[in-house]
Formats: sequence, C-alpha cells, structure tokens
Amino acid sequence: MKINGKQYRSVWFDPASNAVGIFDQTLLPHHVETLALTTLDHVCHAIVSMQVRGAPLIGAVAAYGYAIALQRDAGDDALAAVYSRLFETRPTAVNLRWALDRVRAAVAALPPAQRAAQALATAHAIADEDVAVCSAIGDYGLDIIRSLSMRNPRGKPLNILTHCNAGWLATVDWGTALAPIYKAYDAGIAVHVWVDETRPRVQGGLTAFELAQHGVPHTVIADNTGGHLMQNNLVDMCIVGTDRTTANGDVCNKIGTYLKALAAYDNGVPFYVALPVSTIDWTLPRGVGAIPIEERDPMEISHVTGVDERGQLARVRLYGSQSQCANHAFDVTPARLVTALITEAGVFDASVAGLAALKSQLEPVA
Amino acid sequence: MKINGKQYRSVWFDPASNAVGIFDQTLLPHHVETLALTTLDHVCHAIVSMQVRGAPLIGAVAAYGYAIALQRDAGDDALAAVYSRLFETRPTAVNLRWALDRVRAAVAALPPAQRAAQALATAHAIADEDVAVCSAIGDYGLDIIRSLSMRNPRGKPLNILTHCNAGWLATVDWGTALAPIYKAYDAGIAVHVWVDETRPRVQGGLTAFELAQHGVPHTVIADNTGGHLMQNNLVDMCIVGTDRTTANGDVCNKIGTYLKALAAYDNGVPFYVALPVSTIDWTLPRGVGAIPIEERDPMEISHVTGVDERGQLARVRLYGSQSQCANHAFDVTPARLVTALITEAGVFDASVAGLAALKSQLEPVA
Repeated sequence: MKINGKQYRSVWFDPASNAVGIFDQTLLPHHVETLALTTLDHVCHAIVSMQVRGAPLIGAVAAYGYAIALQRDAGDDALAAVYSRLFETRPTAVNLRWALDRVRAAVAALPPAQRAAQALATAHAIADEDVAVCSAIGDYGLDIIRSLSMRNPRGKPLNILTHCNAGWLATVDWGTALAPIYKAYDAGIAVHVWVDETRPRVQGGLTAFELAQHGVPHTVIADNTGGHLMQNNLVDMCIVGTDRTTANGDVCNKIGTYLKALAAYDNGVPFYVALPVSTIDWTLPRGVGAIPIEERDPMEISHVTGVDERGQLARVRLYGSQSQCANHAFDVTPARLVTALITEAGVFDASVAGLAALKSQLEPVA
Repeated sequence: MKINGKQYRSVWFDPASNAVGIFDQTLLPHHVETLALTTLDHVCHAIVSMQVRGAPLIGAVAAYGYAIALQRDAGDDALAAVYSRLFETRPTAVNLRWALDRVRAAVAALPPAQRAAQALATAHAIADEDVAVCSAIGDYGLDIIRSLSMRNPRGKPLNILTHCNAGWLATVDWGTALAPIYKAYDAGIAVHVWVDETRPRVQGGLTAFELAQHGVPHTVIADNTGGHLMQNNLVDMCIVGTDRTTANGDVCNKIGTYLKALAAYDNGVPFYVALPVSTIDWTLPRGVGAIPIEERDPMEISHVTGVDERGQLARVRLYGSQSQCANHAFDVTPARLVTALITEAGVFDASVAGLAALKSQLEPVA
C-alpha cells in the first residue's frame, strides 16, 4: 500500500519507542495521521473506537497489543487478563480470537521473563503472514477478474461493486476484497469500482481513499443504489470481505452485505467473498441466526462526522432527540447467495462441501 | 396532521397574501419553518430543491403554482410555458404531470381572464381530494395492519418497516404509506416502525419527525439494516410509497426500495405499496428498464446536512475530492416482489390482472 506515494503497512512496531504504530482511521479520508500505541489501554481504545478496524488488522494489532502488555507483566494472571480485555473489544471478529490464541499458545509454556519477546515475535509473524495471505487472495481474485473482463467488450472497464472497506486499511497490507482489484489494475485490466458508502460508519470513504491513492477509477454511491445498478447491467461482479465465515459458507460481514447479495443473485451478478482462512469459524455449522451481532452506539446512526468548509472534522446530528436509533453492525449472508469464497488457499464453493474441501487441503493427511 | 399539537396541511393557499404556504422540508426535522411562495420561480425552486417532495404533494404544489403564475399572464403561450417549467422540475413524478394536465384541461377552454380563478379552484380540489384519497388508503391499509396484528402474540407490537417518507409531509395530509400506521395507532393497535434513514437525502428524518409528532413508537436505522432485521423476524410487514406505478404493478420509488423488497421476499415478509391511483402510469406496460431514473447532484452523496452542537444547520463533506460520487434517486421494484397495492379504490394485486381490475373499477361501464 502507498499513501501519498510512500510505502506503508497499516500496523507496524517501532522498537525505538516500543510502540505499535497505526493510522488513525477515524480521521481518514480527511486527515492522514499516525498514532503510537504504547499501552494496553491505547490498543483497546484503538480497536473499540475503530481507529483500526477490519478483521485481519484487528487481529494483528491485538497481537502487538498483547506483546506490549506482557512487557509490563507476563505472569499467568496477566496472560489471561490481557487476553480477555483484548477479546472483548470486538466480539464478532473471529480472527481477533485466532490471533490472541496464537500469541498465548506461543508464550504460555515459556517462563514469564521470555514471554514478551516471544509474543512480539509472534505478532511480527502474524503481520508478515497476513501480508502474504492477502497477496495470495489477490492473485486468486485476479484470475477471476481477468476471466470476467475477457467477456467484456474491448475497452469497457469491468464494473466491480464493493461494500464497506476490505482493503489495505482493513488488513496489514493489500486487503482482502480489494487485493484482486489492485492486482488487476496493476496488470493493466480496466476496472471501475462502485463504492458503497456503508452507513453508519461510512467505511466507503476509506475504500474511496485507498482506491484514489492507488489510482483506481471509482464512484461512491449510497448504500441504496447497488440494486438499481445491477438491475441495469452496470455491475459485472461484487466482491466483499467477511468478519466471520461458518462451516457451511455463510458469511458475516458489515451490515448491508446481505442486501447486495440478494440483488446480485436476483440479477445474475457473481458475488464473491474474499477472506483469509483465519476468519473461518469451524465451530459454527451455520451463520444465519447463530452469530451474535454486535450492536454499536446509536449515536453512530444519529450523527455523522465529516469535514466542514474549513476542512476541520465536524459532527452533525441527523435526527431529532424524540427519535431513537438502532445500530446493528453486521449481517449474515447465506451461502446460497455467494458465488465462491476466495482464500489464500484457492477459490472454494460457499457450501459444506466447499469448506470441507478447503479444510482437507489445509490439514495434512494423517 | 399535527405539528406541535396544531392541525396543518402540508400545502395551503393564503388569499390575503396570495401565496402558497409550505413547510420548508429541507430544514426538517431540525427547524419547523413555513414559506410563502408568491411566484412561479418560488414554486419551481421549492420543488427542485426539495423544500417540498413526495409525489402527491408535488402535484398539489405544482397545481397551486400553475394558478398563481396564471394570475400574471393567462394567455395561451403562458399556459404552455408554465406547464413546461413546472413539469421539468421533477420528471419522475407521474402525478406532477397528472395535476398539471388537470389544471390545464380545466382552464384551457376558458377566456384568459377567467383562467387563474379556475386554476386556483382546481388546485383546491386537487388538494382536498388528495386528503380524501390518503384517508381512504389509510382505511384499507388499517384493515391489513389489524389482520396482521391479530396473528401477533397479545401485546407484542406489529413491527413495520418503511423507506423514505410517504407520510403527510409527502402528501397534503395523512400520507400514503404512513396513513395506515396513523390510523392503526389511533385505533389502539400496538405498532412500532423501523424507519430507514434513506440516504442520500435522509428523508427518514422526516418520517421520524412525523411519527414522533403523532406519538408512534419508532426507531431509525441505517438503510443497510432491514435485511438483517427481516432475517431475524423483527419485521412483520413493509410498507412504502411509490412515485410511479406501471400497468403491470412495477413500482418506481426512492432508491433502495428494491433492496428491501428483495429482503422481504426472501424472508416471507409481506411488502405493501401504498399509492393514490393518480400515480399509476397506464401508458407504461412495465417499469424495470423503462422508467427514466432521475440522477441528482452528486453533492447530495458527498455531503450531509444536519445540525451542529449549537443546533444550527451545518453541512459536512464525507469523501475526499479525488473521489467522484453518483446519485441515482429512484429504483424500480418488480411487481413479483410486491404483496399488494393499497389504493384509495381498494387493495389490488401488483400484476397486469390486478391493475386491470383496478382500472375497470375506476371506469364506468360504457
């Protein structure tokens, strides 16, 4: 990923200041500012307040947070308490748990004095692997984009709709749903991206920012618009991320994903979900009605933040105080609406059989 | 309708000042202010800028505007020119044309000196009839709500989802989609309304304002949310308005309606459309791909208006200037997704047969 032409990751560790570095995504796309997180409180606040968001990035940031917390106290009580605090920041993100489990497993058998260093090494490994995983997702997705674009009349860009932000800002680098788009653009394939604004948090602004930084043509639309576009042959494919995928291929992603999947199905538009294998929850046989859906602060509905005429961040209230608001953060898209899952291990059917095939590929034969 | 306990209509004529009175809906729900429109320019601006919106209200306001324009010049050239100017303000609203046709037909055969008075009388008739029509829609819809609520466990409110604003602010009084809800509430039936915020113009704020004024329990949600709610049995029925209905029962309503209809269909939730017969376009055999969809200013996407901490209207920008936005204002919901059409003449299937039955009821047997 590049910001203003300079190479970055979405999270890094600065040994000099012993700090976890991030971009404050609550200021994007308006202001590009970095934050140095030096305490567990900082890290938890960054996740809860969505200064970092996106399942893979949350996992990596939590792993780094685990490491810096263990520098202060790496006893068995702290090992458990820090795990709990970090886990509770975003209960829907399955690879938050996966990352924390991995750090804990890597250090639990060590004497406390060695735990912090091992935790940091594990966090580095998680971050490096996330980059490799997203790059592989991008390569598999690129094949799909290339084959769809070859059906298009010469020169007509492939129109791709995406919801929320599943780009490099949601991962350590590359992104999940956006990785194939970046690779397609870099390969010279003509693409144009319809960017759902994704109320209430307007993560479409992050996606638009990323695409603009990379030079990819794109247009921001209200979340209400995708069905109309698909009905009128203005969308060639949809691609989204997922916070949690169940063993039957149901995907839990940002609220509103289900509506776009319905519209894609109704109009014969392929609907792809890009995900690292770490976001699969093998313990859940299905997602609809089974995944607890995070309800966030209603003020995210009643208020919107942008920049005012002076370019300064400002928040406005949309509704009168006599009206209550509700803020469901995710929904579940049934596997029957998903064309395929694009993972770092290949492209699989969103079905029990497809997930089983994926799992068997991951596990060496006994 | 009542605002702060006082009875109003959404449009009125003040003979003393020779002005068309409206509420400036661009200030609602934050500030309740009336406007006195005294010229054709005022009236056209009020429609284009959405100080008034909603198909039936636009029709009535345009009729009043026609009348006050003819007071200045009622010659044949003016009769045609004023028609054109008013018609071009909102091309999607079929009963804008209907209202203008009706005024023109009522005055065209008269000597110019008598035209303005007759136009005003016709505008009054259009407004009075709209109130009667909406009240009748409310009565038919009330029957549906009552019968659905009787299936609900005692005391559990009937959850009704609506999109955009099809209430009294969109008509002269009562509303279309909201009329049944007001009548149900007044009849003592427990109801709760999920209010789609309806980006980009956030007409959900108008619906929430109306419902609050009437005391109806309601919750504002992001447009992305309805599918999740329906999937989890939190919606018992949907009811929306329509700007234009074609002869096969396709309905053209605010962008995003189609997505909610898909979700309702997928979850077995009844999806009703409430409309005055005047919004039916008998000349169009179908709506999908056939109705020109208004594209509005992209700044309605890139910017949002609300009130700041001091309670003053303020506008913030959501996206960087490197990202373009697109603003499609309506979409078409295919008849196959519509449970029934609720009109002032009764409840009809959204189908060629249903519309034919409606038409035969309207036309006296030759």
